[in-house]
Amino acid sequence: MEAGFRNTNWQELSFAIVGLGLIGGSYAKALRQLGVRQIIGIESNAAVLAQAMDEGLIDLGLSEADARLRQADVIICCIYPEAIASFMKDNVGFFKEDVLLTDVAGIKNDMIATVQAVLPQGMEFISGHPMAGRQGSGLGMSDAAIFRNANYIIVPEKGNTTAAIKWLEAFALALGCKQTVQVTPEEHDRTIAFTSNLPHVTAVALVDSASYSDKTKYFVAGSFRDGTRVADINPELWCGLFLANKDKVADEVDKYIEQLVLWRDALRAGDGETLKDLMRKGAARRKELY
Amino acid sequence: MEAGFRNTNWQELSFAIVGLGLIGGSYAKALRQLGVRQIIGIESNAAVLAQAMDEGLIDLGLSEADARLRQADVIICCIYPEAIASFMKDNVGFFKEDVLLTDVAGIKNDMIATVQAVLPQGMEFISGHPMAGRQGSGLGMSDAAIFRNANYIIVPEKGNTTAAIKWLEAFALALGCKQTVQVTPEEHDRTIAFTSNLPHVTAVALVDSASYSDKTKYFVAGSFRDGTRVADINPELWCGLFLANKDKVADEVDKYIEQLVLWRDALRAGDGETLKDLMRKGAARRKELY
Repeated sequence: MEAGFRNTNWQELSFAIVGLGLIGGSYAKALRQLGVRQIIGIESNAAVLAQAMDEGLIDLGLSEADARLRQADVIICCIYPEAIASFMKDNVGFFKEDVLLTDVAGIKNDMIATVQAVLPQGMEFISGHPMAGRQGSGLGMSDAAIFRNANYIIVPEKGNTTAAIKWLEAFALALGCKQTVQVTPEEHDRTIAFTSNLPHVTAVALVDSASYSDKTKYFVAGSFRDGTRVADINPELWCGLFLANKDKVADEVDKYIEQLVLWRDALRAGDGETLKDLMRKGAARRKELY
Repeated sequence: MEAGFRNTNWQELSFAIVGLGLIGGSYAKALRQLGVRQIIGIESNAAVLAQAMDEGLIDLGLSEADARLRQADVIICCIYPEAIASFMKDNVGFFKEDVLLTDVAGIKNDMIATVQAVLPQGMEFISGHPMAGRQGSGLGMSDAAIFRNANYIIVPEKGNTTAAIKWLEAFALALGCKQTVQVTPEEHDRTIAFTSNLPHVTAVALVDSASYSDKTKYFVAGSFRDGTRVADINPELWCGLFLANKDKVADEVDKYIEQLVLWRDALRAGDGETLKDLMRKGAARRKELY
Protein backbone atom coordinates (compact mmCIF):
# COMPACT_ATOMS: atom_id res chain seq x y z
CA MET A 1 0.00 0.00 0.00
CA GLU A 2 1.35 3.39 -1.04
CA ALA A 3 2.46 5.62 1.84
CA GLY A 4 -0.30 8.03 2.79
CA PHE A 5 -2.85 6.16 0.66
CA ARG A 6 -6.06 5.31 2.46
CA ASN A 7 -8.28 2.65 0.95
CA THR A 8 -11.91 3.57 0.23
CA ASN A 9 -12.82 0.24 -1.36
CA TRP A 10 -14.96 -0.61 1.64
CA GLN A 11 -15.45 -4.24 0.74
CA GLU A 12 -11.68 -4.77 1.04
CA LEU A 13 -11.47 -3.38 4.56
CA SER A 14 -11.72 -4.92 8.01
CA PHE A 15 -13.22 -2.66 10.69
CA ALA A 16 -13.08 -2.97 14.45
CA ILE A 17 -15.69 -1.23 16.58
CA VAL A 18 -14.77 -0.65 20.21
CA GLY A 19 -17.95 -0.45 22.31
CA LEU A 20 -21.24 -1.86 21.00
CA GLY A 21 -23.68 0.66 22.45
CA LEU A 22 -26.19 2.70 20.51
CA ILE A 23 -23.56 4.40 18.35
CA GLY A 24 -21.18 1.44 18.01
CA GLY A 25 -24.09 -0.80 17.06
CA SER A 26 -25.26 1.74 14.51
CA TYR A 27 -21.80 1.74 12.91
CA ALA A 28 -21.89 -2.06 12.78
CA LYS A 29 -25.26 -2.03 11.03
CA ALA A 30 -24.18 0.67 8.57
CA LEU A 31 -20.92 -1.19 7.84
CA ARG A 32 -22.88 -4.35 7.18
CA GLN A 33 -25.00 -2.47 4.64
CA LEU A 34 -21.79 -1.13 3.11
CA GLY A 35 -20.57 -4.70 2.64
CA VAL A 36 -17.19 -4.36 4.34
CA ARG A 37 -14.89 -7.41 4.46
CA GLN A 38 -15.02 -7.94 8.22
CA ILE A 39 -16.52 -6.37 11.34
CA ILE A 40 -14.78 -7.02 14.65
CA GLY A 41 -16.65 -6.03 17.78
CA ILE A 42 -14.89 -5.34 21.08
CA GLU A 43 -17.28 -5.21 24.01
CA SER A 44 -16.68 -6.05 27.67
CA ASN A 45 -20.35 -6.86 28.34
CA ALA A 46 -20.66 -10.56 27.43
CA ALA A 47 -24.43 -10.45 26.87
CA VAL A 48 -24.16 -7.52 24.47
CA LEU A 49 -21.31 -9.19 22.61
CA ALA A 50 -23.35 -12.40 22.28
CA GLN A 51 -26.33 -10.43 21.02
CA ALA A 52 -24.19 -8.69 18.38
CA MET A 53 -22.92 -12.09 17.19
CA ASP A 54 -26.41 -13.62 17.22
CA GLU A 55 -27.79 -10.77 15.16
CA GLY A 56 -24.94 -11.09 12.70
CA LEU A 57 -23.78 -7.54 13.31
CA ILE A 58 -20.17 -8.61 13.84
CA ASP A 59 -18.00 -11.40 12.41
CA LEU A 60 -15.65 -11.66 15.36
CA GLY A 61 -16.38 -10.73 18.96
CA LEU A 62 -13.67 -9.89 21.47
CA SER A 63 -14.33 -9.21 25.14
CA GLU A 64 -11.10 -7.22 25.16
CA ALA A 65 -8.45 -6.29 22.64
CA ASP A 66 -5.91 -8.98 21.71
CA ALA A 67 -3.63 -9.84 18.78
CA ARG A 68 -6.62 -10.50 16.52
CA LEU A 69 -7.25 -6.77 16.51
CA ARG A 70 -4.29 -6.56 14.10
CA GLN A 71 -6.71 -7.76 11.38
CA ALA A 72 -8.46 -4.39 11.49
CA ASP A 73 -7.55 -1.73 8.91
CA VAL A 74 -9.76 0.76 10.70
CA ILE A 75 -10.69 1.00 14.38
CA ILE A 76 -13.69 3.08 15.44
CA CYS A 77 -13.75 3.93 19.15
CA CYS A 78 -17.34 4.21 20.35
CA ILE A 79 -16.60 4.33 24.06
CA TYR A 80 -16.86 7.19 26.57
CA PRO A 81 -14.53 10.07 25.62
CA GLU A 82 -12.48 9.77 28.80
CA ALA A 83 -11.78 6.10 28.04
CA ILE A 84 -10.32 6.60 24.56
CA ALA A 85 -6.76 7.64 25.41
CA SER A 86 -6.25 4.76 27.85
CA PHE A 87 -7.69 2.25 25.35
CA MET A 88 -5.08 3.45 22.84
CA LYS A 89 -2.24 3.39 25.35
CA ASP A 90 -3.11 -0.09 26.62
CA ASN A 91 -3.66 -1.69 23.22
CA VAL A 92 -1.40 0.03 20.71
CA GLY A 93 0.69 -3.17 20.62
CA PHE A 94 -2.31 -4.99 19.03
CA PHE A 95 -2.85 -2.43 16.25
CA LYS A 96 -1.88 -3.02 12.61
CA GLU A 97 1.19 -0.91 11.76
CA ASP A 98 -0.71 1.39 9.35
CA VAL A 99 -4.10 1.28 11.12
CA LEU A 100 -6.43 4.24 10.82
CA LEU A 101 -8.24 5.08 14.06
CA THR A 102 -11.20 7.31 14.62
CA ASP A 103 -13.71 8.02 17.39
CA VAL A 104 -17.15 9.45 18.01
CA ALA A 105 -16.44 11.48 21.14
CA GLY A 106 -18.81 14.41 21.49
CA ILE A 107 -16.18 16.48 23.32
CA LYS A 108 -12.61 16.64 22.07
CA ASN A 109 -10.56 19.09 24.20
CA ASP A 110 -6.98 17.72 24.47
CA MET A 111 -7.93 14.08 23.86
CA ILE A 112 -6.94 14.17 20.17
CA ALA A 113 -3.41 15.42 20.80
CA THR A 114 -3.05 12.96 23.71
CA VAL A 115 -4.02 10.01 21.53
CA GLN A 116 -1.84 11.11 18.62
CA ALA A 117 1.15 11.31 20.96
CA VAL A 118 0.61 7.65 21.95
CA LEU A 119 0.66 6.30 18.39
CA PRO A 120 3.85 5.38 16.56
CA GLN A 121 4.67 6.66 13.06
CA GLY A 122 2.33 5.11 10.46
CA MET A 123 -0.73 4.75 12.70
CA GLU A 124 -3.06 7.70 12.45
CA PHE A 125 -5.91 8.89 14.64
CA ILE A 126 -8.35 11.21 12.84
CA SER A 127 -11.09 12.43 15.14
CA GLY A 128 -14.69 13.17 14.29
CA HIS A 129 -18.29 12.18 14.88
CA PRO A 130 -21.65 12.22 13.20
CA MET A 131 -24.14 14.86 14.39
CA ALA A 132 -26.53 12.05 15.04
CA GLY A 133 -28.03 10.14 17.86
CA ARG A 134 -31.33 9.18 19.27
CA GLN A 135 -32.94 8.79 22.63
CA GLY A 136 -32.12 5.73 24.62
CA SER A 137 -28.93 3.77 24.81
CA GLY A 138 -27.53 0.35 24.13
CA LEU A 139 -27.19 -1.99 21.19
CA GLY A 140 -30.94 -2.60 21.05
CA MET A 141 -31.51 1.03 20.11
CA SER A 142 -28.84 1.11 17.39
CA ASP A 143 -29.90 1.91 13.85
CA ALA A 144 -27.97 2.41 10.60
CA ALA A 145 -30.45 5.16 9.76
CA ILE A 146 -28.95 7.58 12.30
CA PHE A 147 -26.35 8.51 9.67
CA ARG A 148 -28.89 9.29 6.98
CA ASN A 149 -28.68 12.99 6.05
CA ALA A 150 -26.66 13.78 9.18
CA ASN A 151 -23.66 16.10 9.15
CA TYR A 152 -20.33 14.51 9.94
CA ILE A 153 -17.89 16.66 11.90
CA ILE A 154 -14.18 16.09 11.24
CA VAL A 155 -11.74 17.51 13.76
CA PRO A 156 -8.19 17.40 12.35
CA GLU A 157 -5.25 18.06 14.64
CA LYS A 158 -1.64 18.94 13.79
CA GLY A 159 -0.64 15.30 13.28
CA ASN A 160 -3.24 14.50 10.63
CA THR A 161 -2.56 13.80 6.95
CA THR A 162 -4.71 15.00 4.09
CA ALA A 163 -5.16 11.33 3.13
CA ALA A 164 -6.76 10.48 6.47
CA ILE A 165 -9.05 13.51 6.36
CA LYS A 166 -10.14 12.63 2.83
CA TRP A 167 -10.70 9.03 3.86
CA LEU A 168 -12.99 10.07 6.74
CA GLU A 169 -14.89 12.41 4.43
CA ALA A 170 -15.52 9.57 1.98
CA PHE A 171 -16.44 7.18 4.83
CA ALA A 172 -18.97 9.63 6.29
CA LEU A 173 -20.70 9.97 2.93
CA ALA A 174 -20.63 6.19 2.44
CA LEU A 175 -22.42 5.80 5.79
CA GLY A 176 -25.23 7.98 4.43
CA CYS A 177 -24.25 11.36 5.85
CA LYS A 178 -25.23 14.46 3.92
CA GLN A 179 -22.02 16.44 4.25
CA THR A 180 -18.85 16.85 6.27
CA VAL A 181 -17.36 19.91 7.91
CA GLN A 182 -13.91 20.48 9.42
CA VAL A 183 -13.33 22.41 12.62
CA THR A 184 -10.53 22.75 15.15
CA PRO A 185 -10.90 20.97 18.52
CA GLU A 186 -11.43 24.34 20.27
CA GLU A 187 -14.09 25.44 17.78
CA HIS A 188 -15.69 22.01 18.01
CA ASP A 189 -16.13 22.07 21.76
CA ARG A 190 -17.33 25.68 21.78
CA THR A 191 -19.94 24.94 19.12
CA ILE A 192 -21.07 21.72 20.79
CA ALA A 193 -21.46 23.66 24.05
CA PHE A 194 -23.96 25.85 22.22
CA THR A 195 -25.79 23.42 19.95
CA SER A 196 -25.86 20.29 22.10
CA ASN A 197 -24.90 20.91 25.75
CA LEU A 198 -26.91 24.13 26.12
CA PRO A 199 -30.22 22.73 24.73
CA HIS A 200 -30.01 19.98 27.35
CA VAL A 201 -29.53 22.61 30.07
CA THR A 202 -32.44 24.70 28.75
CA ALA A 203 -34.73 21.65 28.71
CA VAL A 204 -33.88 20.47 32.23
CA ALA A 205 -34.08 24.02 33.63
CA LEU A 206 -37.53 24.48 32.08
CA VAL A 207 -39.09 21.46 33.75
CA ASP A 208 -37.11 22.09 36.96
CA SER A 209 -38.68 25.54 37.37
CA ALA A 210 -40.24 26.37 40.73
CA SER A 211 -43.51 26.88 38.79
CA TYR A 212 -43.90 23.16 38.13
CA SER A 213 -46.97 21.82 39.94
CA ASP A 214 -49.67 19.16 39.90
CA LYS A 215 -51.62 21.22 37.37
CA THR A 216 -48.74 21.57 34.92
CA LYS A 217 -49.69 18.37 33.14
CA TYR A 218 -53.06 19.75 32.05
CA PHE A 219 -51.47 22.77 30.43
CA VAL A 220 -48.57 21.31 28.51
CA ALA A 221 -48.95 21.49 24.76
CA GLY A 222 -46.48 21.24 21.92
CA SER A 223 -44.11 24.05 22.88
CA PHE A 224 -43.51 22.69 26.38
CA ARG A 225 -43.23 19.13 25.11
CA ASP A 226 -40.59 20.03 22.53
CA GLY A 227 -38.78 22.42 24.85
CA THR A 228 -38.37 19.71 27.50
CA ARG A 229 -37.98 16.58 25.37
CA VAL A 230 -34.31 16.04 26.20
CA ALA A 231 -34.92 16.69 29.91
CA ASP A 232 -35.52 12.93 30.10
CA ILE A 233 -31.76 12.67 30.35
CA ASN A 234 -29.18 10.14 31.57
CA PRO A 235 -27.67 12.07 34.52
CA GLU A 236 -24.49 9.96 34.78
CA LEU A 237 -23.64 10.15 31.07
CA TRP A 238 -24.45 13.83 30.75
CA CYS A 239 -22.68 14.80 33.94
CA GLY A 240 -19.50 13.51 32.30
CA LEU A 241 -20.22 15.37 29.06
CA PHE A 242 -20.96 18.63 30.87
CA LEU A 243 -17.91 18.45 33.14
CA ALA A 244 -15.62 17.62 30.21
CA ASN A 245 -16.71 20.90 28.60
CA LYS A 246 -17.71 22.83 31.70
CA ASP A 247 -16.22 26.26 31.10
CA LYS A 248 -17.52 26.47 27.55
CA VAL A 249 -20.98 25.32 28.65
CA ALA A 250 -21.00 27.87 31.49
CA ASP A 251 -20.09 30.57 28.92
CA GLU A 252 -23.05 29.49 26.80
CA VAL A 253 -25.39 29.58 29.78
CA ASP A 254 -24.21 33.13 30.46
CA LYS A 255 -24.84 34.22 26.87
CA TYR A 256 -28.26 32.59 27.02
CA ILE A 257 -29.10 34.43 30.26
CA GLU A 258 -28.17 37.68 28.45
CA GLN A 259 -30.97 36.97 25.95
CA LEU A 260 -33.44 36.13 28.71
CA VAL A 261 -32.66 39.38 30.50
CA LEU A 262 -33.52 41.27 27.28
CA TRP A 263 -36.87 39.47 27.28
CA ARG A 264 -37.54 40.01 30.98
CA ASP A 265 -36.76 43.72 30.81
CA ALA A 266 -38.81 44.25 27.64
CA LEU A 267 -41.75 42.41 29.20
CA ARG A 268 -41.62 44.45 32.41
CA ALA A 269 -41.45 47.65 30.36
CA GLY A 270 -44.24 46.55 28.01
CA ASP A 271 -41.78 47.16 25.15
CA GLY A 272 -43.45 45.36 22.26
CA GLU A 273 -40.97 46.63 19.66
CA THR A 274 -38.06 44.92 21.40
CA LEU A 275 -40.07 41.71 21.79
CA LYS A 276 -40.90 41.76 18.08
CA ASP A 277 -37.26 42.42 17.15
CA LEU A 278 -36.15 39.44 19.24
CA MET A 279 -38.81 37.24 17.65
CA ARG A 280 -38.07 38.40 14.10
CA LYS A 281 -34.39 37.55 14.54
CA GLY A 282 -35.23 34.18 16.06
CA ALA A 283 -37.80 33.27 13.40
CA ALA A 284 -35.41 34.21 10.57
CA ARG A 285 -32.57 32.13 12.03
CA ARG A 286 -34.83 29.16 12.71
CA LYS A 287 -36.02 29.23 9.09
CA GLU A 288 -32.41 29.42 7.91
CA LEU A 289 -31.51 26.30 9.89
CA TYR A 290 -34.35 23.97 8.89
CA MET B 1 -86.20 24.68 27.39
CA GLU B 2 -85.85 24.30 31.12
CA ALA B 3 -84.10 27.18 32.87
CA GLY B 4 -80.44 26.36 33.40
CA PHE B 5 -80.60 23.32 31.12
CA ARG B 6 -77.97 23.22 28.45
CA ASN B 7 -78.56 20.95 25.50
CA THR B 8 -75.91 18.32 24.70
CA ASN B 9 -77.81 16.74 21.83
CA TRP B 10 -75.30 18.16 19.37
CA GLN B 11 -77.34 17.39 16.28
CA GLU B 12 -80.09 19.69 17.57
CA LEU B 13 -77.81 22.68 18.02
CA SER B 14 -76.79 25.56 15.79
CA PHE B 15 -73.24 26.84 16.34
CA ALA B 16 -71.69 30.11 15.24
CA ILE B 17 -67.92 30.39 14.95
CA VAL B 18 -66.49 33.90 15.01
CA GLY B 19 -63.18 33.96 13.15
CA LEU B 20 -62.26 31.18 10.71
CA GLY B 21 -58.54 30.92 11.31
CA LEU B 22 -56.65 27.81 12.28
CA ILE B 23 -58.61 27.29 15.50
CA GLY B 24 -61.99 28.46 14.22
CA GLY B 25 -61.62 26.26 11.15
CA SER B 26 -60.68 23.32 13.36
CA TYR B 27 -63.87 23.81 15.41
CA ALA B 28 -65.89 23.91 12.18
CA LYS B 29 -64.38 20.63 11.01
CA ALA B 30 -64.89 18.97 14.40
CA LEU B 31 -68.48 20.22 14.57
CA ARG B 32 -69.12 18.81 11.10
CA GLN B 33 -67.88 15.42 12.27
CA LEU B 34 -70.14 15.77 15.31
CA GLY B 35 -73.12 16.26 12.98
CA VAL B 36 -74.47 19.48 14.48
CA ARG B 37 -77.61 21.03 13.00
CA GLN B 38 -76.00 24.16 11.59
CA ILE B 39 -72.61 25.88 11.45
CA ILE B 40 -72.57 29.64 10.96
CA GLY B 41 -69.21 31.22 10.13
CA ILE B 42 -68.49 34.89 10.80
CA GLU B 43 -65.32 36.04 9.05
CA SER B 44 -64.43 39.51 7.75
CA ASN B 45 -61.97 38.17 5.16
CA ALA B 46 -64.17 37.48 2.10
CA ALA B 47 -61.76 34.99 0.51
CA VAL B 48 -61.56 32.93 3.69
CA LEU B 49 -65.34 33.00 4.08
CA ALA B 50 -65.78 31.83 0.48
CA GLN B 51 -63.28 29.05 1.01
CA ALA B 52 -65.11 27.86 4.14
CA MET B 53 -68.38 27.77 2.17
CA ASP B 54 -66.74 26.03 -0.81
CA GLU B 55 -65.27 23.36 1.41
CA GLY B 56 -68.62 22.83 3.10
CA LEU B 57 -67.25 23.72 6.53
CA ILE B 58 -70.06 26.17 7.23
CA ASP B 59 -73.73 26.33 6.25
CA LEU B 60 -74.08 30.09 6.45
CA GLY B 61 -71.33 32.65 6.02
CA LEU B 62 -71.56 36.17 7.44
CA SER B 63 -68.95 38.86 6.83
CA GLU B 64 -70.15 40.46 10.05
CA ALA B 65 -72.72 39.69 12.72
CA ASP B 66 -76.36 40.47 11.87
CA ALA B 67 -79.82 39.29 12.95
CA ARG B 68 -79.18 35.82 11.49
CA LEU B 69 -76.75 35.21 14.34
CA ARG B 70 -79.87 34.76 16.51
CA GLN B 71 -80.15 31.26 14.97
CA ALA B 72 -77.10 30.20 16.96
CA ASP B 73 -77.56 28.33 20.25
CA VAL B 74 -73.82 28.47 20.87
CA ILE B 75 -71.27 31.07 19.77
CA ILE B 76 -67.57 30.21 19.83
CA CYS B 77 -65.28 33.24 19.64
CA CYS B 78 -62.05 32.31 17.85
CA ILE B 79 -60.72 35.83 17.41
CA TYR B 80 -57.80 37.61 19.10
CA PRO B 81 -58.35 37.84 22.88
CA GLU B 82 -58.39 41.65 22.84
CA ALA B 83 -61.22 41.65 20.27
CA ILE B 84 -63.62 39.45 22.23
CA ALA B 85 -65.15 42.00 24.61
CA SER B 86 -65.83 44.53 21.85
CA PHE B 87 -67.38 41.82 19.63
CA MET B 88 -69.77 41.02 22.48
CA LYS B 89 -70.58 44.67 23.21
CA ASP B 90 -71.20 45.51 19.53
CA ASN B 91 -73.31 42.46 18.73
CA VAL B 92 -75.19 41.44 21.87
CA GLY B 93 -78.37 42.70 20.19
CA PHE B 94 -78.04 39.88 17.62
CA PHE B 95 -77.65 37.08 20.18
CA LYS B 96 -80.39 34.57 21.00
CA GLU B 97 -81.80 35.36 24.46
CA ASP B 98 -80.43 32.16 26.05
CA VAL B 99 -77.29 31.84 23.93
CA LEU B 100 -74.23 30.14 25.38
CA LEU B 101 -70.98 31.83 24.46
CA THR B 102 -67.46 30.57 24.77
CA ASP B 103 -64.01 31.50 23.52
CA VAL B 104 -60.55 30.09 22.92
CA ALA B 105 -58.45 32.97 24.22
CA GLY B 106 -55.07 31.79 25.46
CA ILE B 107 -54.92 34.60 28.03
CA LYS B 108 -57.91 35.45 30.19
CA ASN B 109 -56.99 38.21 32.72
CA ASP B 110 -60.07 40.44 33.23
CA MET B 111 -61.65 39.64 29.86
CA ILE B 112 -64.08 37.06 31.28
CA ALA B 113 -65.55 39.41 33.89
CA THR B 114 -65.71 42.22 31.30
CA VAL B 115 -67.65 40.05 28.86
CA GLN B 116 -69.99 38.69 31.52
CA ALA B 117 -70.83 42.26 32.55
CA VAL B 118 -71.93 43.06 28.99
CA LEU B 119 -74.39 40.17 28.72
CA PRO B 120 -78.01 40.42 29.89
CA GLN B 121 -79.59 37.83 32.21
CA GLY B 122 -80.04 34.48 30.38
CA MET B 123 -77.02 34.75 28.10
CA GLU B 124 -73.95 33.09 29.51
CA PHE B 125 -70.28 33.30 28.66
CA ILE B 126 -68.22 30.33 29.86
CA SER B 127 -64.57 30.72 29.04
CA GLY B 128 -62.08 28.02 28.11
CA HIS B 129 -59.82 26.66 25.42
CA PRO B 130 -58.29 23.43 24.25
CA MET B 131 -54.58 22.94 24.99
CA ALA B 132 -54.10 22.38 21.32
CA GLY B 133 -52.70 24.09 18.33
CA ARG B 134 -50.24 23.55 15.58
CA GLN B 135 -47.71 25.54 13.63
CA GLY B 136 -48.93 27.87 10.97
CA SER B 137 -52.10 29.88 10.82
CA GLY B 138 -55.20 30.30 8.76
CA LEU B 139 -58.12 28.16 7.68
CA GLY B 140 -55.90 26.08 5.39
CA MET B 141 -54.02 24.72 8.41
CA SER B 142 -57.13 23.86 10.40
CA ASP B 143 -57.69 20.25 11.42
CA ALA B 144 -60.34 18.52 13.54
CA ALA B 145 -57.56 16.29 14.88
CA ILE B 146 -56.09 19.08 17.05
CA PHE B 147 -58.67 18.20 19.71
CA ARG B 148 -57.78 14.53 19.78
CA ASN B 149 -56.45 13.61 23.22
CA ALA B 150 -55.93 17.27 24.13
CA ASN B 151 -56.78 18.69 27.53
CA TYR B 152 -59.57 21.27 27.60
CA ILE B 153 -59.17 24.07 30.11
CA ILE B 154 -62.35 25.54 31.58
CA VAL B 155 -62.09 28.88 33.35
CA PRO B 156 -65.29 29.61 35.30
CA GLU B 157 -65.87 33.08 36.72
CA LYS B 158 -68.32 34.23 39.40
CA GLY B 159 -71.17 34.57 36.91
CA ASN B 160 -71.09 31.01 35.63
CA THR B 161 -73.72 28.32 36.25
CA THR B 162 -72.99 24.67 36.89
CA ALA B 163 -75.07 23.87 33.81
CA ALA B 164 -72.79 25.90 31.53
CA ILE B 165 -69.65 24.36 33.02
CA LYS B 166 -71.08 20.87 32.60
CA TRP B 167 -72.08 21.67 29.02
CA LEU B 168 -68.56 22.81 28.13
CA GLU B 169 -67.10 19.68 29.75
CA ALA B 170 -69.35 17.48 27.62
CA PHE B 171 -68.63 19.54 24.51
CA ALA B 172 -64.84 19.23 24.99
CA LEU B 173 -65.10 15.45 25.26
CA ALA B 174 -67.38 15.34 22.21
CA LEU B 175 -64.73 17.23 20.23
CA GLY B 176 -62.28 14.43 21.03
CA CYS B 177 -60.49 15.92 24.02
CA LYS B 178 -59.09 13.58 26.64
CA GLN B 179 -60.11 15.44 29.78
CA THR B 180 -61.11 18.81 31.16
CA VAL B 181 -59.73 20.78 34.07
CA GLN B 182 -61.09 23.88 35.84
CA VAL B 183 -58.91 26.76 36.98
CA THR B 184 -59.45 30.37 38.01
CA PRO B 185 -58.51 33.12 35.52
CA GLU B 186 -55.51 34.10 37.67
CA GLU B 187 -54.26 30.51 37.93
CA HIS B 188 -54.88 30.05 34.22
CA ASP B 189 -52.73 32.96 33.14
CA ARG B 190 -49.96 32.11 35.59
CA THR B 191 -49.84 28.51 34.37
CA ILE B 192 -49.97 29.52 30.71
CA ALA B 193 -47.09 31.92 31.33
CA PHE B 194 -45.08 28.89 32.43
CA THR B 195 -46.22 26.15 30.05
CA SER B 196 -46.81 28.13 26.86
CA ASN B 197 -45.37 31.66 26.95
CA LEU B 198 -42.09 30.67 28.58
CA PRO B 199 -41.23 27.81 26.16
CA HIS B 200 -41.59 30.29 23.31
CA VAL B 201 -39.19 32.67 25.07
CA THR B 202 -36.69 29.86 25.74
CA ALA B 203 -36.78 28.77 22.08
CA VAL B 204 -36.31 32.26 20.62
CA ALA B 205 -33.58 33.11 23.16
CA LEU B 206 -31.69 29.92 22.26
CA VAL B 207 -31.46 30.66 18.56
CA ASP B 208 -30.91 34.39 19.24
CA SER B 209 -27.77 33.66 21.29
CA ALA B 210 -24.63 35.61 20.39
CA SER B 211 -23.05 32.18 19.73
CA TYR B 212 -25.10 31.63 16.58
CA SER B 213 -22.84 31.60 13.52
CA ASP B 214 -22.43 30.28 9.97
CA LYS B 215 -21.18 27.00 11.40
CA THR B 216 -24.16 26.44 13.69
CA LYS B 217 -26.09 24.65 10.98
CA TYR B 218 -23.54 21.83 10.77
CA PHE B 219 -23.80 21.12 14.47
CA VAL B 220 -27.51 21.17 15.13
CA ALA B 221 -28.98 17.81 16.00
CA GLY B 222 -32.17 16.76 17.72
CA SER B 223 -31.83 18.66 20.98
CA PHE B 224 -31.28 22.02 19.28
CA ARG B 225 -34.00 21.33 16.73
CA ASP B 226 -36.59 20.52 19.40
CA GLY B 227 -35.43 23.30 21.71
CA THR B 228 -35.90 25.91 18.98
CA ARG B 229 -38.89 24.55 17.07
CA VAL B 230 -41.31 27.24 18.18
CA ALA B 231 -38.74 29.99 17.51
CA ASP B 232 -40.27 30.08 14.03
CA ILE B 233 -42.88 32.32 15.56
CA ASN B 234 -45.45 34.90 14.38
CA PRO B 235 -44.02 38.07 16.02
CA GLU B 236 -47.22 40.13 15.71
CA LEU B 237 -49.49 37.48 17.20
CA TRP B 238 -47.10 36.54 19.97
CA CYS B 239 -46.25 40.11 20.86
CA GLY B 240 -49.92 40.54 21.72
CA LEU B 241 -50.00 37.31 23.73
CA PHE B 242 -46.86 38.23 25.67
CA LEU B 243 -47.96 41.79 26.43
CA ALA B 244 -51.41 40.62 27.56
CA ASN B 245 -49.66 38.46 30.18
CA LYS B 246 -46.44 40.40 30.56
CA ASP B 247 -45.91 40.49 34.32
CA LYS B 248 -46.62 36.80 34.74
CA VAL B 249 -44.32 35.94 31.83
CA ALA B 250 -41.56 38.14 33.26
CA ASP B 251 -41.97 36.31 36.59
CA GLU B 252 -41.54 33.00 34.79
CA VAL B 253 -38.42 34.22 32.99
CA ASP B 254 -36.99 35.22 36.36
CA LYS B 255 -37.71 31.80 37.86
CA TYR B 256 -36.15 30.18 34.80
CA ILE B 257 -33.03 32.32 35.14
CA GLU B 258 -32.79 31.10 38.77
CA GLN B 259 -32.45 27.54 37.44
CA LEU B 260 -29.86 28.56 34.86
CA VAL B 261 -27.80 30.29 37.52
CA LEU B 262 -27.72 27.01 39.47
CA TRP B 263 -26.38 25.31 36.35
CA ARG B 264 -23.85 28.02 35.57
CA ASP B 265 -22.46 28.06 39.10
CA ALA B 266 -22.30 24.26 39.34
CA LEU B 267 -20.51 24.10 35.97
CA ARG B 268 -17.95 26.74 36.95
CA ALA B 269 -17.34 24.91 40.24
CA GLY B 270 -17.14 21.50 38.55
CA ASP B 271 -19.88 20.39 40.96
CA GLY B 272 -21.10 17.17 39.36
CA GLU B 273 -23.38 16.24 42.27
CA THR B 274 -25.46 19.38 41.82
CA LEU B 275 -25.62 18.82 38.06
CA LYS B 276 -26.82 15.27 38.60
CA ASP B 277 -29.42 16.40 41.15
CA LEU B 278 -30.79 18.94 38.67
CA MET B 279 -30.91 16.31 35.94
CA ARG B 280 -32.51 13.66 38.14
CA LYS B 281 -35.29 16.06 39.11
CA GLY B 282 -35.80 17.10 35.47
CA ALA B 283 -35.80 13.54 34.15
CA ALA B 284 -38.31 12.41 36.79
CA ARG B 285 -40.69 15.29 36.05
CA ARG B 286 -40.39 14.84 32.30
CA LYS B 287 -41.29 11.15 32.66
CA GLU B 288 -44.25 12.09 34.87
CA LEU B 289 -45.59 14.43 32.19
CA TYR B 290 -45.37 12.23 29.09
